[in-house]
Amino acid sequence: MEIKLKPIGIIHSPFKKKEDMDSKKYADFRGFDSIQGELEIFKEYEKGLKDVEGFSHLVVLFAFHKSEGYKLHTKPLLGGILRGVFATRSPNRPNPIGMTVVKVLERNRNRLKVSGVDMIEGTPILDIKPFTSRDQKSRIKLGWLKKKMNR
Amino acid sequence: MEIKLKPIGIIHSPFKKKEDMDSKKYADFRGFDSIQGELEIFKEYEKGLKDVEGFSHLVVLFAFHKSEGYKLHTKPLLGGILRGVFATRSPNRPNPIGMTVVKVLERNRNRLKVSGVDMIEGTPILDIKPFTSRDQKSRIKLGWLKKKMNR
Repeated sequence: MEIKLKPIGIIHSPFKKKEDMDSKKYADFRGFDSIQGELEIFKEYEKGLKDVEGFSHLVVLFAFHKSEGYKLHTKPLLGGILRGVFATRSPNRPNPIGMTVVKVLERNRNRLKVSGVDMIEGTPILDIKPFTSRDQKSRIKLGWLKKKMNR
Repeated sequence: MEIKLKPIGIIHSPFKKKEDMDSKKYADFRGFDSIQGELEIFKEYEKGLKDVEGFSHLVVLFAFHKSEGYKLHTKPLLGGILRGVFATRSPNRPNPIGMTVVKVLERNRNRLKVSGVDMIEGTPILDIKPFTSRDQKSRIKLGWLKKKMNR
C-alpha cells in the first residue's frame, strides 16, 4: 500500500537553508514563536481557505523535502544519546512529514502571514487544519526532552 | 512533485466503521479522550519506538483511508454552513492525512495502548511524534467551531 500526496502550497521562511536553523539557539520551549513567514497556498486551493482566518492557530503538515533517508535510532539535534526516531521530531524519519502549529497573523487571498515558523524556505505544504481545544493537553510529560527544552 | 508514503503500522479502534462514530455524541471538547485503542507498529519499525513511553502524549499522523475525494467547500459533520476544507478537520481533503494527539497508557513491544482514539479500525499509521510544550498554545481562538464545540 502506498499513499501519494502532492503539495498544496509552499512555505516562505527567513531560514533559507537547513544550516540557518541553529537548534540550540531555539531550544527554549517558545523557540520559534517570533519567527514570521508566509504560507502560500496554490491558487487552485484558495477556496479551501475560507474561514481559516477565524482561527488563531493552524496545524501545518509539510514535507521534509531536504530529508535523506533515516535511521530508527537517531541522535537528536539538541544532543545526547541515541533515541528512537518516533521519540524525536527529526526530519529524517520513515515518512518525512513534519507538523508545526503556527499562529495566524493575517490573510491576504491565498497567502497567510504566520508566526512560529520552523521550516525552511520552499518547504512543500501538504495540509492545513484548524488547531482546536482537542489538540491541547494538560499535564504533559516530556520524556528525554525534559532536560533539553527550557521548560 | 509527488510525495510517496507507506504505512508504518495500523490503528486498532473500537470504531469498526465510519458509521460507528457519532460526531454529535463526541462534540464535547474532551470528545474522544476516554476512547481506548492500540497503535500497532510494524515489527520492522519497532526499534524506532525506543523512548516514546517517556512521553505522556504522542502526535499520530495517519491516512484517512476511507476518504473518497474532496470539495474545497464542505459541510462539517457538526452541521451548519459550508466551510473552507482547511478550516475543518474533515477526512475529505486534498491530501487525506489526519492528525490526532493521543495519550500513552502502556507500551508492549511494538504495540502502544492509547486513549483519545478518533480513528477507525485498520487506519494506516504514517508517523508518530512526541507531543511537546511547543505544540501547546495559549489564548486560542476557535473560529466557526466555537459555537459547535462545548467549550
